[in-house]
Amino acid sequence: MATGKYVYFFGNGRAEGTADMKNLLGGKGANLAEMVNIGLPVPPGFTITTELCTYYYANGRKYPKILEKQVRDALAKVERSMGAKFGDAKNPLLVSVRSGARASMPGMMDTILNLGLNDTTASGLIAKTSNPRFVYDSYRRFVQMYGDVVLGLKPEGKDAIDPFEEIIEKMKRDKGVKLDTELSADDLKLLVTLFKRAIKENTGHDFPEDPMAQLWGAIGAVFGSWMNDRAIAYRKLYDIPESWGTAVNVQTMVFGNMGEDSGTGVAFTRDAATGENVFYGEYLMNAQGEDVVAGIRTPLPIAKLAVDNPKIYAQLDKNRKILEKHYRDMMDIEFTIQQNRLYMLQCRVGKRTAFAAIKIAVDMVGEKLITDKEALMRIEPDALNQLLRPIFDPKEKEAAVKGGRLLAKGLNAGPGAATGRVVFNAPDAEAWAKRGEKVILTRIETSPEDIKGMDAAEGILTARGGMTSHAALVARQMGKVCVAGCGELEINYATHIMSVKGKTIKEGDWISIDGTTGQVLEGKVQTRPSEVLQVLVEKSLDEKQAPVYQEFAKIMQWSDKHRTLKIRTNADQPDQSANAVAFGAEGIGLCRTEHMFFGEGKIGPMREMILADTLEQRKAALAKLLPLQRKDFAGIFEVMKGKPVTIRTIDPPLHEFLPHEEKPQRELAAQMGLPYEKVKQRVESLHEFNPMLGFRGCRLGVVFPEISEMQARAIFEAAAETKKKGIDVEPEVMIPLVGNVKELEHQEAIVRGVAAQVMKEQGVKFPYLVGTMIEVPRGAVTADEIARIAEFFSFGTNDLTQTTMGVSRDDAARFLVPYVEKEIYAKDPFEVLDRVGVGLLMKMAVEKGRSARPGIKLGICGEHGGDPSSIEFCHMIGLNYVSCSPFRVPIARLAAARAAIKHVSPSRAAEKRRPAARKAQRSARRKR
Amino acid sequence: MATGKYVYFFGNGRAEGTADMKNLLGGKGANLAEMVNIGLPVPPGFTITTELCTYYYANGRKYPKILEKQVRDALAKVERSMGAKFGDAKNPLLVSVRSGARASMPGMMDTILNLGLNDTTASGLIAKTSNPRFVYDSYRRFVQMYGDVVLGLKPEGKDAIDPFEEIIEKMKRDKGVKLDTELSADDLKLLVTLFKRAIKENTGHDFPEDPMAQLWGAIGAVFGSWMNDRAIAYRKLYDIPESWGTAVNVQTMVFGNMGEDSGTGVAFTRDAATGENVFYGEYLMNAQGEDVVAGIRTPLPIAKLAVDNPKIYAQLDKNRKILEKHYRDMMDIEFTIQQNRLYMLQCRVGKRTAFAAIKIAVDMVGEKLITDKEALMRIEPDALNQLLRPIFDPKEKEAAVKGGRLLAKGLNAGPGAATGRVVFNAPDAEAWAKRGEKVILTRIETSPEDIKGMDAAEGILTARGGMTSHAALVARQMGKVCVAGCGELEINYATHIMSVKGKTIKEGDWISIDGTTGQVLEGKVQTRPSEVLQVLVEKSLDEKQAPVYQEFAKIMQWSDKHRTLKIRTNADQPDQSANAVAFGAEGIGLCRTEHMFFGEGKIGPMREMILADTLEQRKAALAKLLPLQRKDFAGIFEVMKGKPVTIRTIDPPLHEFLPHEEKPQRELAAQMGLPYEKVKQRVESLHEFNPMLGFRGCRLGVVFPEISEMQARAIFEAAAETKKKGIDVEPEVMIPLVGNVKELEHQEAIVRGVAAQVMKEQGVKFPYLVGTMIEVPRGAVTADEIARIAEFFSFGTNDLTQTTMGVSRDDAARFLVPYVEKEIYAKDPFEVLDRVGVGLLMKMAVEKGRSARPGIKLGICGEHGGDPSSIEFCHMIGLNYVSCSPFRVPIARLAAARAAIKHVSPSRAAEKRRPAARKAQRSARRKR
Repeated sequence: MATGKYVYFFGNGRAEGTADMKNLLGGKGANLAEMVNIGLPVPPGFTITTELCTYYYANGRKYPKILEKQVRDALAKVERSMGAKFGDAKNPLLVSVRSGARASMPGMMDTILNLGLNDTTASGLIAKTSNPRFVYDSYRRFVQMYGDVVLGLKPEGKDAIDPFEEIIEKMKRDKGVKLDTELSADDLKLLVTLFKRAIKENTGHDFPEDPMAQLWGAIGAVFGSWMNDRAIAYRKLYDIPESWGTAVNVQTMVFGNMGEDSGTGVAFTRDAATGENVFYGEYLMNAQGEDVVAGIRTPLPIAKLAVDNPKIYAQLDKNRKILEKHYRDMMDIEFTIQQNRLYMLQCRVGKRTAFAAIKIAVDMVGEKLITDKEALMRIEPDALNQLLRPIFDPKEKEAAVKGGRLLAKGLNAGPGAATGRVVFNAPDAEAWAKRGEKVILTRIETSPEDIKGMDAAEGILTARGGMTSHAALVARQMGKVCVAGCGELEINYATHIMSVKGKTIKEGDWISIDGTTGQVLEGKVQTRPSEVLQVLVEKSLDEKQAPVYQEFAKIMQWSDKHRTLKIRTNADQPDQSANAVAFGAEGIGLCRTEHMFFGEGKIGPMREMILADTLEQRKAALAKLLPLQRKDFAGIFEVMKGKPVTIRTIDPPLHEFLPHEEKPQRELAAQMGLPYEKVKQRVESLHEFNPMLGFRGCRLGVVFPEISEMQARAIFEAAAETKKKGIDVEPEVMIPLVGNVKELEHQEAIVRGVAAQVMKEQGVKFPYLVGTMIEVPRGAVTADEIARIAEFFSFGTNDLTQTTMGVSRDDAARFLVPYVEKEIYAKDPFEVLDRVGVGLLMKMAVEKGRSARPGIKLGICGEHGGDPSSIEFCHMIGLNYVSCSPFRVPIARLAAARAAIKHVSPSRAAEKRRPAARKAQRSARRKR
Repeated sequence: MATGKYVYFFGNGRAEGTADMKNLLGGKGANLAEMVNIGLPVPPGFTITTELCTYYYANGRKYPKILEKQVRDALAKVERSMGAKFGDAKNPLLVSVRSGARASMPGMMDTILNLGLNDTTASGLIAKTSNPRFVYDSYRRFVQMYGDVVLGLKPEGKDAIDPFEEIIEKMKRDKGVKLDTELSADDLKLLVTLFKRAIKENTGHDFPEDPMAQLWGAIGAVFGSWMNDRAIAYRKLYDIPESWGTAVNVQTMVFGNMGEDSGTGVAFTRDAATGENVFYGEYLMNAQGEDVVAGIRTPLPIAKLAVDNPKIYAQLDKNRKILEKHYRDMMDIEFTIQQNRLYMLQCRVGKRTAFAAIKIAVDMVGEKLITDKEALMRIEPDALNQLLRPIFDPKEKEAAVKGGRLLAKGLNAGPGAATGRVVFNAPDAEAWAKRGEKVILTRIETSPEDIKGMDAAEGILTARGGMTSHAALVARQMGKVCVAGCGELEINYATHIMSVKGKTIKEGDWISIDGTTGQVLEGKVQTRPSEVLQVLVEKSLDEKQAPVYQEFAKIMQWSDKHRTLKIRTNADQPDQSANAVAFGAEGIGLCRTEHMFFGEGKIGPMREMILADTLEQRKAALAKLLPLQRKDFAGIFEVMKGKPVTIRTIDPPLHEFLPHEEKPQRELAAQMGLPYEKVKQRVESLHEFNPMLGFRGCRLGVVFPEISEMQARAIFEAAAETKKKGIDVEPEVMIPLVGNVKELEHQEAIVRGVAAQVMKEQGVKFPYLVGTMIEVPRGAVTADEIARIAEFFSFGTNDLTQTTMGVSRDDAARFLVPYVEKEIYAKDPFEVLDRVGVGLLMKMAVEKGRSARPGIKLGICGEHGGDPSSIEFCHMIGLNYVSCSPFRVPIARLAAARAAIKHVSPSRAAEKRRPAARKAQRSARRKR
């Protein structure tokens, strides 16, 4: 290595490096080289490689002998390119020195500008530019930067004062001016002297007048900063190996502040906000980069340059096209015009809004710049939310915030915008909605009893609960706007009043909630539905008149082409199911039957069933529920038209169906003709310390087989009814919370018995499956035993995460937030599947399940089924489908396609290999 | 097979089978053969093998041709032995036919007696015995049995009526008598006729008069019963393969009711109740087996036979000795004396009380009948409880029950006997105990706040909670008597009254609770402490005067010789630790620091810490706790004298330390100088939906590192103090609820930092370890990552069971009871470790842990650490130790020895193999 090549020149239309050499040259160096190679005007310079950094640390912070020569040679090339000389008294070359690791890394030394200036070169430059103010301004900036960064005079800590800033402040006070720009050339010259004196005082050494000494000092500072505390901490945090090292870029200075024929600007090759294919940027003449950013002068839109300097603009626009064609992406560029000559200083892939990302990707496919696969890989699945959700009118919302109407901020639990009148309980929400009022259901927290009220409301606002609280979960499934866990609200159910920040909001007052940002606003704010919704769900807009819908449709078409995972939805009602189908759902992965029990006329018999003392009473109540459940199922089967429908038997603990407060308990007692004490006692006896781990799931069906029987009968009678109408059906009966194959065996016998009976009674046949959720670790680790009975597994990753980690998602906020802050978990495991732990159990279950039953159908119906990273993992471990809430179906389709593009699934790969192998065999045979 | 040997003769001092041939001859047949072979007088007969049963079913329920000849030949041998002939008109041979599978199996056909009787042979027998009543009684019994069992007339269902019983009942009504014995010989003869008529009516066939037809009918019935529904169901339940089949035993009938020189009896070769080496049994002259059992005549003690018939007694006693010497165990025998001739009818290993099991096993080692290993294998570890617990004076208790003082029955949660006055809360328990009252703390359920009250009480009685409820758990650890989950009690805290079965028990009333049986008795019942306790703990009895203690000591000595698992204890206090050491504990496996916080003066600062708003306030409160915790640890270290002590950092959710009712909340507020509302709000804000999965364990220490810091400091300062006194210390700091290595890393850094600091401050060094509990599935499946940091794992199988199964043990009773009934789980998984699910995760963790850190120390500190079956599993998967409550240490020692005897642990086997292998190598070398 000590004899290797450590210095790579770029400039004059030819660079020794390329964009591919990021590991060796760092990101910045590689991109500078690339720009040179594609013919863009880049100020010449050279990059000292990351290998040198490694050498430096491996050899007691010494450089190899050969380095000096390589630097001198490269510098000589730069000098030749520029026709200037480093340290020359008449025509001095100035350079910048920058660090450049593979990835941009906070804590590293950033930039030294104007290096090469000293009293001699300054004079030469004044002679050359006739602009002493420009020269002394550059000089004093250089001395300060050098002192701060290379000589280490910049103190740590945000309140610490830079000695140079002190000197400037004193001078401004003495002069009675406020801005640096008000200082004269002489003032600036004095500053240089004062700065040098400060350096001498603080370090005991003179400021180095020798440009080469300056250069080596700056290079050393860059390499030294690789090992400073902040850089080390950052690397540890992001697992960046120390061995990567940093590169150093030494580049000719160009100046946009050399007069009115000079200038500087930043631009995006397309509009980064809307994605439109227009050149978008800002510039200032006679200015330096920092002036554009500082906000003292107002930069001009790039279009103005076309008018003011058509020649430069034409060059710039040409470069824009070269860059887009070369990088095949929207680029963020920096440029400087020095005395009517254009220089490109930097280019990188441009950041953009989600909305722009979508438009740019779709447009670029149309322009044949990229493939559909590439387009999909450039759109974060969650970005599709922007196309789906109703949104606030941006101007109205801004006005509301500026007008002090922002009340609080909670969790952005259900994206979208909603405005309505506050009600504090579900019956009120229903009643108000019935008489045509738009309401925001506002609760401390919601429970299954509130479902109908949630459905009636425009949006849901809660004071407690996280991203996977009941409110958040149900809201997302319903496609409702939801702001959850807004702790600042003090809600008083008794008085129907909430207070927040000293303001009082009464029942009936208008509020607006932004489920995309978590904002809660006082009063009304206008909303509008998305084009996609208008086309697909409301069917109120023709797709030809909906350009945004067109983009959406293309993305969906490409996604479906590439994905291998099927996408199902979690839905309990025919209308939800219909929406999901409109969004592309290929089946229902989770129909929660318990939600149905809260429907019209159903809660009564349900409570009767729970309050029953004898099997006979329980059966009588169940008999009342049977026709009601059957009707629900029939409705769903009809909408789904033969697509598979996975129906989960009753899951939650029974106490969730009973009222917990005295008044409704008394009402219930009166209704049922029971003494109040009896209702109260039953509710109390059903109380559980840890309901999550309590008497629920298949445990209910094992202890009360008559419940499973009724549910199976409702499912199969509905299936028979649908089938008789000539519509195909494919019910999949799913038994929840199975941890032991014997539980499933018990329930399966009931389900199959009822199925046979119903088919015989009704004289029709239809296919059906019996399977289970894998949602407790014991289910996962004994999946081989369970698969002997189960025809499918659906991973209930909400509960599987809770049990595997021993974390209750309802209680987790108090430690999960600090945990994520302390990087114990990178993400909230209820949002993004924990691949290492929960994922390992899933993988075990997949392998064990397939070992016992190779054709077993595998899916996921936990909330993770709608999360892109989790969908990727599901693809990787070979599931057959994911199921998510209806409004996340498009996101899941895209995420599944991205996963398939990124990873070829093992089974898919095998399929693809097979024909190839056969072909090879055939041709081998022919050859004989 | 069709030409094989299917029939095995026994009798006349020689049998073709042996006791080892249980698979072929069934249990009964093999034992009959064995008795013949060791020279005991057994009525001759033969066994048709289980292979024949297999053949029968494999060949469409047909016998091989050869069978008939083999049966005839065997029967001829029997006839020769007895000098009687089957079906002979003058000297007829009668036989019994019995089924006999490998294991006794309910649902199989049991017994047909007196087979061979018909009108002809009956006459012959009358002529021979001159006892028509005996003959007709035998005859009518035979016809009924044959009709019921062979011809299938016995109806199923417990309320169904046997047609033969109807006939008998009618005859008794007609005769105006009550008992069968009151019927005359003629009556019995008439019954035979009526029975035969009933058979004809019910089956359409005549009763078979031909004895050979009777015999084949009975044999067919035995084989047929192998496939009846009950037998199939039983086999399915106990995983008995159908292919095992059953054998059939045909044996000569002998009669104890042939006059005053005949008789019958049952006996144990030693006293089955006390274990004393005395012949123990009962007999009746001129009687049949069922008469001894029926209770109409009072049987005589076996000693009386020695007086009345010394010759027969001498034979019997000789047989007893032969049997014990041969079987090397206490045997249960049946015998019949027929006309002064003794026959042995059956022998099997005798059932015995736990107390007797211990005495017999120890005595037999002394008698050199068995080895110490065999002795250990014959003592169920839980039997040792009988030697340890105080017990009620048996007579007093019997009187109490007979006197109607039995109030209720709960779970036998903490074995032993306690009597005291009822108090309904912990402070009262303390206060009453302080003034010398014995109290029974009676609660709906207990919580950590009650610890001091529980400690002060003689016993604990709760209305709710299972075998691993807080009350049960703590009681066992304290060695307290406890009856838990006694649902019949209605406790009213407000009035200090409980009612049960209409009785009212007030505060201060005496009750007595039997934690071995779960009984709750009204009033006082005298108790006495066990000898073992008097010797080891109270040290009030000299061991030489304690014969029961001597037995205990021998068992412990043998156990320690054979076991490889170390036994530790769960203890939080010096006195508990001292008791545990007296019982043989080799270290502390779990010291729960939170229990300490309820101690004198500690709950105050603890609550202050929880109520603190700032880090400073929290640190101030922790500073008060530090010296108090240090003192606790120092006390334990001193008692443990260098034995390892595993200390767990704080585990339970913080709300457990705060009062939940208004009054104590107000008191606390006043005490702390805080507004009541603030205390109330803090308690409410700490409320959790699922506290088991909430903010607890290491999560507390990660969020509030200052708590871990204080605890580490208390531990290490105590260790330093102890070390300075010249006593060795070996603390093992255990971080609970780790699911992610980063949690442990975070806590480990704190602990090691404090350790280094304290050692430096105090100028002493001592060894210590940092490790973790494995108690959530994520911890188990990522054990390899965790073992990079952890020097030991301790399996917290209570929580690991809860999370793996998704079952809250506090809420599980409502479904676990039906689950165990429905055989979904064979045992309560909180009592006996679930090997398949939880065990699989433990095994994974052991393998992954050792793969990452080969020398890692592995133990268990969940309640399962005291359960023999679970201890066996811990041995099998290669743990280093188990830890259990102090009073279970002896049980664990025995269980560990039994496990080691049953399974040679892989590591042990390797150790043993190694020297042998080396020896082999050496000798191989020598040979060259």
